[in-house]
Amino acid sequence: MTHIPESAKVGKNVVIEEGVQIGERVTIGHNTVILKGTRIENEVSINSNCVLGIQPSGNKKMRNSFASNDQLILKKNTKIGNLVSIYAGTKIAENVFVGDHASIRENVMIGEGSVVGRAAIVELNSTIGKSCTIQTLAYVTGNTVIEDNVFLGPCVSMSNDKYMGAKDYELKGPIIKKGAKIGNNASLLPGVIIGAYSIVGAGAVVTKNVKNSEVVAGVPIKKIR
Amino acid sequence: MTHIPESAKVGKNVVIEEGVQIGERVTIGHNTVILKGTRIENEVSINSNCVLGIQPSGNKKMRNSFASNDQLILKKNTKIGNLVSIYAGTKIAENVFVGDHASIRENVMIGEGSVVGRAAIVELNSTIGKSCTIQTLAYVTGNTVIEDNVFLGPCVSMSNDKYMGAKDYELKGPIIKKGAKIGNNASLLPGVIIGAYSIVGAGAVVTKNVKNSEVVAGVPIKKIR
Amino acid sequence: MTHIPESAKVGKNVVIEEGVQIGERVTIGHNTVILKGTRIENEVSINSNCVLGIQPSGNKKMRNSFASNDQLILKKNTKIGNLVSIYAGTKIAENVFVGDHASIRENVMIGEGSVVGRAAIVELNSTIGKSCTIQTLAYVTGNTVIEDNVFLGPCVSMSNDKYMGAKDYELKGPIIKKGAKIGNNASLLPGVIIGAYSIVGAGAVVTKNVKNSEVVAGVPIKKIR
Repeated sequence: MTHIPESAKVGKNVVIEEGVQIGERVTIGHNTVILKGTRIENEVSINSNCVLGIQPSGNKKMRNSFASNDQLILKKNTKIGNLVSIYAGTKIAENVFVGDHASIRENVMIGEGSVVGRAAIVELNSTIGKSCTIQTLAYVTGNTVIEDNVFLGPCVSMSNDKYMGAKDYELKGPIIKKGAKIGNNASLLPGVIIGAYSIVGAGAVVTKNVKNSEVVAGVPIKKIR
Repeated sequence: MTHIPESAKVGKNVVIEEGVQIGERVTIGHNTVILKGTRIENEVSINSNCVLGIQPSGNKKMRNSFASNDQLILKKNTKIGNLVSIYAGTKIAENVFVGDHASIRENVMIGEGSVVGRAAIVELNSTIGKSCTIQTLAYVTGNTVIEDNVFLGPCVSMSNDKYMGAKDYELKGPIIKKGAKIGNNASLLPGVIIGAYSIVGAGAVVTKNVKNSEVVAGVPIKKIR
Repeated sequence: MTHIPESAKVGKNVVIEEGVQIGERVTIGHNTVILKGTRIENEVSINSNCVLGIQPSGNKKMRNSFASNDQLILKKNTKIGNLVSIYAGTKIAENVFVGDHASIRENVMIGEGSVVGRAAIVELNSTIGKSCTIQTLAYVTGNTVIEDNVFLGPCVSMSNDKYMGAKDYELKGPIIKKGAKIGNNASLLPGVIIGAYSIVGAGAVVTKNVKNSEVVAGVPIKKIR
């Protein structure tokens, strides 16, 4: 049985499965589902109609589908919007904000104070540093590394599979170094390295690495500064 | 206590908080959440698993997060899809259609007869005119002005922050004049003015203003006609 | 009244309307809504907070809005994620996987073993073949034909209306032949034909047809191989 502290504020029609741990002064909105094994620390707030602690699934076309025995952990004072889905085996640090309709897969780490925007998606095995901004509808593919203080503009797109499913290939997401800024609707190709404090223009297609502090734009990218 | 007229048709597991106003012949689907202060006028229909009347929230990384005391108002005969989120302090006029999975933030105005497509997102402080079509997955950034009869194609992207969070800057969304048409997956930069009856091609990156009735395309945009 | 077999596993707060048919060993997550007329075959699993069997709706701005009397059919062993919406009049074959937050409209056919990714959208009257991968956030417009073994990368965008609502025009989505691969965030224009086993680069804007086995990229596309 799950123990719900008296200081928690729980909405109507909330489903909390067995083995969920709930801290003090937690808020849970209406119609939200918390699946077994989820750990919710003090002062976390979760809004309505979310599904948290999802176990990975898939069909025969899909790689990387495995059962995760790990917990979803939401650290102190993190805020989760409405209609959000988050998987088991993921750790979200203190003071993170996850916008409505966002989705975060299994085995993801999100650093302290970062923002995962509205309808943004973070795929499995990716790491996001501290104080990052992942804007609305941005897409972080699987096996991506995002260091601290990175800004991903709205609708940024990534991929991690050079052969688009045609060959066996180790999936490689982009590596985005600290302080880099990516403009809205830019496309990042598998495994590109975006240097520290670099700037990628809106709508750019990043086909090769970007050096530290470079400014690039265009399709494919060219150096501007 | 909320008064629910006998003419209303309310689904199962619906949560209606106190102080919600509900007109005649309103339909509300199953598992939908209507938060306090929402005003729903006659003949409005809302489908299942929505969350309406959300209060703004955020963390320290985020600007523009403030408490709104205003109501969400849905005017007569407006239709809301499934799994939709809409914030408090927003006014949606008569005969609007909001598609499934769409999200509309606080302090937004949407004019009569407009369509906000499936999974489209409208950020805070933006205005959309009458008879506009905001297609599927289009992204309307904060502080955007869209006049009447505008067509935003699917997956159109915008931004409103020239410095991507690096400096203090007054956020400026695009200004899209009446009758303009923006092709799918075009990217609009902060503060650009798109002239009346102009046409922007699919995949274009709009880095500067577009004159009335001009036709532009490319990355960055060039004049075609 | 709907008969729920003893072998079915049904979560809490699930709403199952009348006339729903449920096979053996079906799993339905918490807070999911199954609307009337839906047929769920053996071993299908559906996760939490979904809405399935939705009737089409719209306002005066929208074409193609009609009442559908057909069923939503989910064939054997298909898996549906969380927070998914699917319409009536659509048939999803055996062993399909539909990711969280995906939305599939009315009168769609999805072939055996295909994947519809997280937050991907498939509009009305479209057909997807067998063993296709429709990646995360990809957008399949209405009246699109996708043959077998096609790969649509993340955030691929399409449109089907050359005049963007300005004229009466028969809506034509792209036709994507078998084995074609489309890179992430590419934009496809109305009615383009993408040849069999062709490859379209990430961020490309496809303004004209692509021949069988061609490799194209750029804005607008040029032939690379």
